[in-house]
Amino acid sequence: MKSLLIFTFLSLNSFAKMQSLPKLVPTPKDNKITNSKIHLGKTLFFDPRLSSNGTISCNSCHNVMAGGEDNRSVSVGVLNQRGGRSAPTVWNAAFQTTQFWDGRAASLEAQAVGPITNPIEMGMKDFKQVTERLKSIPGYVKMFNKSFGKNSINKKNIGKAIATFERTLITRNSPFDKYINGNKKALGKSALRGMKLVEEVGCTACHTGVNFSGEGFKMGEGNFQKFPTFANNNFVKKYKFSNDLGLYEQTKQDDDKNMWRVPTWRNVALTAPYFHNGSVKTLAEAVRVMAKTQLDTDLKAKQVKDIVAFLNSLTGQLPKITAPHLPLTPGTTLIKLEY
Amino acid sequence: MKSLLIFTFLSLNSFAKMQSLPKLVPTPKDNKITNSKIHLGKTLFFDPRLSSNGTISCNSCHNVMAGGEDNRSVSVGVLNQRGGRSAPTVWNAAFQTTQFWDGRAASLEAQAVGPITNPIEMGMKDFKQVTERLKSIPGYVKMFNKSFGKNSINKKNIGKAIATFERTLITRNSPFDKYINGNKKALGKSALRGMKLVEEVGCTACHTGVNFSGEGFKMGEGNFQKFPTFANNNFVKKYKFSNDLGLYEQTKQDDDKNMWRVPTWRNVALTAPYFHNGSVKTLAEAVRVMAKTQLDTDLKAKQVKDIVAFLNSLTGQLPKITAPHLPLTPGTTLIKLEY
Repeated sequence: MKSLLIFTFLSLNSFAKMQSLPKLVPTPKDNKITNSKIHLGKTLFFDPRLSSNGTISCNSCHNVMAGGEDNRSVSVGVLNQRGGRSAPTVWNAAFQTTQFWDGRAASLEAQAVGPITNPIEMGMKDFKQVTERLKSIPGYVKMFNKSFGKNSINKKNIGKAIATFERTLITRNSPFDKYINGNKKALGKSALRGMKLVEEVGCTACHTGVNFSGEGFKMGEGNFQKFPTFANNNFVKKYKFSNDLGLYEQTKQDDDKNMWRVPTWRNVALTAPYFHNGSVKTLAEAVRVMAKTQLDTDLKAKQVKDIVAFLNSLTGQLPKITAPHLPLTPGTTLIKLEY
Repeated sequence: MKSLLIFTFLSLNSFAKMQSLPKLVPTPKDNKITNSKIHLGKTLFFDPRLSSNGTISCNSCHNVMAGGEDNRSVSVGVLNQRGGRSAPTVWNAAFQTTQFWDGRAASLEAQAVGPITNPIEMGMKDFKQVTERLKSIPGYVKMFNKSFGKNSINKKNIGKAIATFERTLITRNSPFDKYINGNKKALGKSALRGMKLVEEVGCTACHTGVNFSGEGFKMGEGNFQKFPTFANNNFVKKYKFSNDLGLYEQTKQDDDKNMWRVPTWRNVALTAPYFHNGSVKTLAEAVRVMAKTQLDTDLKAKQVKDIVAFLNSLTGQLPKITAPHLPLTPGTTLIKLEY
């Protein structure tokens, strides 16, 4: 009886750590949310003219009609170019304290402008080219005027507008959130077992907080962890996890080797394939891999099933989004004909 | 006075031919419009998993957030492949009696399934592969069941659903339509002069009817015209119009050489660049080219300006479209990791 009591106490205590999404989305003081910024940001987010040849928009790889990404191993940029990392989900990215797989961007604002001039993503030459293109679209001039004042088309404000739209991309009312908010029928038995297991196995040492990506970090502060921690297993070889050294690739500091930002669990069921290189096709295998590489644990088939059921319960409701009408340039095109 | 009377009579007579968009959209008897088909068709239209590597949806090239196409000379399909023809607008395509530049599809239903298995467009191997992929998405099984009954995921019904969605893509209330419907202030002086000019110059010999693409044709019946009719000019050389022989490329019948379906004028201001090969960047130049190649007429600068003003008045209101939530496959992806 005593052990049962202790177990109950422990598990309640553990569950108490799990949190539903808060009502307020973290927002920097110098970029308050306004309707006109949301609208401008949404329009930019869907506009393929932010890419060199007019084929790739933010939404191409961070598809808000799906899991906030593209269900591909790695994304395809302009001219069929592919990088080495899988697109992270844009859903609830506003709750992440850093952005990109290696957490190199300290804010949504900083992240949003990165892919636009990345040669293998959207391929614009520089922000001079980006702002010149936007300035030649009368509709954008009006929208920037309204959001940021006169002559405000610049890199910083493009980032601010897109980040503001992204702060609306929150998926609430997942079965898990309903459960935490008091509806005890929202989760089935398997998911409830999985909920306990992720604590007991040790997953929630890192996957904690409202976004299951760490807790107590300030915006801009990264929750970095070594992946793989336990490298001497077949998974690491099979999936070539260590071909990419994470933050080290950016900083070239030895301490940063294999360091990665802890990704969110929310909507993880919608974002296959998995890991930074998109090498793992299913969520069940991703769970097996994580237990082995991070906790040196071999999960049983039933445990994997229960944890997957719990992770499925973190799929939230996607907000309704009206497709924007892109402001156009009647009678001409901004895309070079030879592209 | 007599000449003025005659002129007034003629021009009223001419204007009487011009028509606003009718309330009813032509719909085949065997594909009645239903809400569930519209929803399914919209979802398919936006779903990049209809392409081999999950990057290209119908909307990629026929962007309903813009002019119903991509403002590119020729579209970009999977693996950065490009064909020889510019994407026609999907707006009001329901009023065209044939589809594709060469009119080779007799219906929206027939057109909609073409690009999916075209190797340089969406690149699916065949419809076996397409239907297998859709059948593995539980959400689509439900949607097809609701729209067409049990076991109904097949090529024909994919075409029917997309065509049904396309029948909702109508742009009403253009300044021109408002004018025709009685609001005489809807058009400015330049547009009104342009409206007369297109009759006087002879453009409306072909560009007539509710969609300015021919009148009196039954669905499936093509309004084909020779382009260029007058080939002995610099435009034809400069823009390489005759490198592509139109319907002939399909039929290899000599009579079909240089034969093309008459395209719509509606929203033409939003669909630069122009012509089958997307070789002409501006609408003004397109007007000059057409007058010369089809009517052997050299327009004056002011005439071009007035005709462009009239064509601009044919830009309608784009309907509000809610981005669909694509039905997903939780915990896995349908796209091969090596793509």
